[in-house]
Amino acid sequence: MNYQAFKLSKYPQGKITMDIFDQVSLPMPALKEGEFLVKQTHMSLDPAMRTWLQERDDSYMPPVQIGEVMRSYGVGEVVESLNPRFPAGSRVVGVTGWSEYVLGNEEMAVIDPSVSAEAVLSIFYITGLTAYAGLMKIGMPKKGETLVVTGAAGSVGSLVGQLAKAEGLRVVGITGSDEKCKWLVDELGFDAAINYKSDNLEAQLNAAAPNGVDIFYENTGGPIQEIIFNQLNRFGRVIVCGVIADYDNAIPAKGPSWVDINLKSLRVQGFIATDYLEISDEAVSVLGNYLAQGKIQYKTHTVEGFESLPEGLMMLFKGENTGKFVVKF
Amino acid sequence: MNYQAFKLSKYPQGKITMDIFDQVSLPMPALKEGEFLVKQTHMSLDPAMRTWLQERDDSYMPPVQIGEVMRSYGVGEVVESLNPRFPAGSRVVGVTGWSEYVLGNEEMAVIDPSVSAEAVLSIFYITGLTAYAGLMKIGMPKKGETLVVTGAAGSVGSLVGQLAKAEGLRVVGITGSDEKCKWLVDELGFDAAINYKSDNLEAQLNAAAPNGVDIFYENTGGPIQEIIFNQLNRFGRVIVCGVIADYDNAIPAKGPSWVDINLKSLRVQGFIATDYLEISDEAVSVLGNYLAQGKIQYKTHTVEGFESLPEGLMMLFKGENTGKFVVKF
Repeated sequence: MNYQAFKLSKYPQGKITMDIFDQVSLPMPALKEGEFLVKQTHMSLDPAMRTWLQERDDSYMPPVQIGEVMRSYGVGEVVESLNPRFPAGSRVVGVTGWSEYVLGNEEMAVIDPSVSAEAVLSIFYITGLTAYAGLMKIGMPKKGETLVVTGAAGSVGSLVGQLAKAEGLRVVGITGSDEKCKWLVDELGFDAAINYKSDNLEAQLNAAAPNGVDIFYENTGGPIQEIIFNQLNRFGRVIVCGVIADYDNAIPAKGPSWVDINLKSLRVQGFIATDYLEISDEAVSVLGNYLAQGKIQYKTHTVEGFESLPEGLMMLFKGENTGKFVVKF
Repeated sequence: MNYQAFKLSKYPQGKITMDIFDQVSLPMPALKEGEFLVKQTHMSLDPAMRTWLQERDDSYMPPVQIGEVMRSYGVGEVVESLNPRFPAGSRVVGVTGWSEYVLGNEEMAVIDPSVSAEAVLSIFYITGLTAYAGLMKIGMPKKGETLVVTGAAGSVGSLVGQLAKAEGLRVVGITGSDEKCKWLVDELGFDAAINYKSDNLEAQLNAAAPNGVDIFYENTGGPIQEIIFNQLNRFGRVIVCGVIADYDNAIPAKGPSWVDINLKSLRVQGFIATDYLEISDEAVSVLGNYLAQGKIQYKTHTVEGFESLPEGLMMLFKGENTGKFVVKF
């Protein structure tokens, strides 16, 4: 029996296009002692995937190599097992790849039967850890401060904003449509939301953050970056979680001058979730409590069918999703 | 009796020029209860003074106002006192201003008779606190790491490099002449020094920091900034102490892209010494011990005469000093 997978055929030049992936048919592996086989059911599409397609050797992990199956996170069911930690019938989450079936690995985690795959991918795995670690450990939020988050209707951004609200902050979301703005304010309880495709962004931000900005959680980059940066208060913190707008460019746009970093004692700090694996349990516990109390909610943008993966990734980078992008099959 | 002072007559447009200061003659004040009069003997010229001449309202302190005496740090002798904490005959250090005599203030500190004014201004006051707090509290140096410091032959830079050597780091200094490079390596024990006015800076830095850069202590800005930034290792720290090269520009040069801050989990943090006043005693104690052990030394670039102040400030910004710039009279 064979299964389907997508391999990387070439690196993208600029924006991601369909033709950088090849769909291939692979033979089902025979398990050796200690191995287990996972049938994927839910795959996560994440902005970080663009960085795994960059030919550079000094990033936090090597890029996906030409001819390799595309890297991704996913949830699946163990269908065959020679490993007692991952018995057949259990569900797991981990680094899987664009493949209907994958050999399991010891870094995978078994999922509690009561938790849905969507909740795992939205809250209890990398997305949740990213939002939690960035906001709490780098942002060090204090009640009454003002947070601005870009990519606010995305999986990480929507969680960051809700978590900051739960912690007592004023929250302003930046996103790409009036509809998403409405969702952030009406459904998620953000104090204000700004469509970055509208006019007079500086004045809008001034009105939305009348006491200035204490924490800037950056998911996107682009021209809005400097507008927010310029409104940071003394001792402001910037959490550089992602700069999608810049990943496509061979020579990325420059950042703000360091004069303000100096004169306003700012801190601009980048991270990736796996820098903070040691606080995974803390993140799960805090986010789980807020979820149970109704203080945070999640939304998934689900696309069906394994074949939808390349197109889904392009949709993600066009910002066509609201909430966590999941491909289900 | 009258005394001399320099008042600010206009803000500089670009580089500092002599004509932004007016020398004036002021009447000696009559002391009221609690006041004391200080005759300055040693004044400190510091890069930060450029930032006090910028018309902006969101910096760490308001700019010097037109018609006000120019702000500065200095050492002097109490010549008359109605304040028992600062008796006549004692020496003090503090915020004084470009003025032969100044009314003392409660924030001034009395200097131990055994310590020279040069040592106070170079090690035991703002310069020392700047070097110590930036390196130790923001840089968080670990033995074996590599530090690059710009403005390395200046008062802060030379101290940062020596302190890092004492803490077991590899130290590379960036400065503006071969003579200063020689001083850094031969006299202060830096592992390497690079003249930023020479060629092939990237290759020179590669050779001087073969394991990459873990800590970048930034005193100057300018084109060398990005060359150093690009060689930062994962989890690298940048201490933005000053960006003199950018203070003169109405629209300062942009900083490096945030893509690397994101992908390499970098931290770029600005500060001013007075953010860390609460660790002044710690800084004095550690630096004093290293000084006593011969692990750090200081050099002053002394110019004589009160009238030399405006010209001295221009010399400082041209990088004509080695070590701490002091005007003595």
